[in-house]
Amino acid sequence: MRESYHDELDQIGATLVELTQYVATAMVSASTALLETDLDSAQAAIAGDHRVDDLRTGVEERCFMLLARQQPVAGDLRTITTALATAADLERMGDLAVHIAKVARMRYPSAAVPAEVRPSLEQMGLLAARLSVKVGEVIEGRDVPLARELEAEDDLMDALHRELFSILLADSWSHGIEPAIDVTLLGRYYERFADHAVLVARRVIYLVTGVWPEEVGAKVG
Amino acid sequence: MRESYHDELDQIGATLVELTQYVATAMVSASTALLETDLDSAQAAIAGDHRVDDLRTGVEERCFMLLARQQPVAGDLRTITTALATAADLERMGDLAVHIAKVARMRYPSAAVPAEVRPSLEQMGLLAARLSVKVGEVIEGRDVPLARELEAEDDLMDALHRELFSILLADSWSHGIEPAIDVTLLGRYYERFADHAVLVARRVIYLVTGVWPEEVGAKVG
Repeated sequence: MRESYHDELDQIGATLVELTQYVATAMVSASTALLETDLDSAQAAIAGDHRVDDLRTGVEERCFMLLARQQPVAGDLRTITTALATAADLERMGDLAVHIAKVARMRYPSAAVPAEVRPSLEQMGLLAARLSVKVGEVIEGRDVPLARELEAEDDLMDALHRELFSILLADSWSHGIEPAIDVTLLGRYYERFADHAVLVARRVIYLVTGVWPEEVGAKVG
Repeated sequence: MRESYHDELDQIGATLVELTQYVATAMVSASTALLETDLDSAQAAIAGDHRVDDLRTGVEERCFMLLARQQPVAGDLRTITTALATAADLERMGDLAVHIAKVARMRYPSAAVPAEVRPSLEQMGLLAARLSVKVGEVIEGRDVPLARELEAEDDLMDALHRELFSILLADSWSHGIEPAIDVTLLGRYYERFADHAVLVARRVIYLVTGVWPEEVGAKVG
């Protein structure tokens, strides 16, 4: 019984890693859709979301079954409650990728964003995709040093986000209100995506070390 | 033992209701800060957030303790996992109220928003406060009919949100980009606040009826 129990825990971890791969793929497609005005990529990001939702539901069902049947305590209980929270964050990251793809789709065949914000958004997209891949590695290896690195990457996302606002607010912005609204929302989606990635990494740190990393309030907000 | 166990479950429910009251208060203060350019209200909303965080942590600790010690099954297990998810939603609603208060504080002593968007934002603020109060009633009474009503209120929030965009995009908008960015983000905060309220209501429906309400995908997105 114990053995199949730990098999189940391993399976939950593997599904979470699989979830990060789907989320990373969705983010790559969404950013491609946005920057290359590519409708197929937008549709791919949007259509793939049901798979993220299904995997999240699968993790939840397995966790609830383990909670009900195996009555885990201490470390195992914490592993399961962490998995539940992590699955919720990853699903939300998938939703945010879909939001980005939908902006691209809504404006197609026009480009959704003016040329001067593309370099910033391109970097935000690359960073977001990298964050999802790293989050998979953090989960798979319970890798605390890598989890701490994500913090620094998130600072970079915040800097790119500020850069985006400074472009919108420059006198040279000549595109009016509608693209400014789109860019504001896109910036928010990328920033929230990174916030959720950092939350997942922080939970792994807590799971392994028993100590919650500092300043979480600032990130959660 | 069983008796103290159900006392604990009742206590968790009572704390969730208390959480909704703090969230409603924060939302009222944040909207007041925004519409009346009132710094004290902004500070009150921001300063009160630690109480929301503490209550959420308290719910989590009680839930984990029950999971570890009492090995609940079936309905009780579902009650506890629902409480965990609900507490997370309510904390996020508190965060969103803080975001609104921070926009007001950042622009103080100027008004954060131009006159023509104030009626829409005022209605969004009233609706958001009402949603948090109703969510408390839904949790307290496991009130499925009221939970279903929240759905309709959320449709109203979406309509107000669209109205906000139509004002931003009208030719008569003369305030330039910066207030447009603020209003875009404020609209998003109110909309997300309502989305989380609906999620809490949907979880109560599921808890009581065993059936997840339709179209959740649309709301979660």
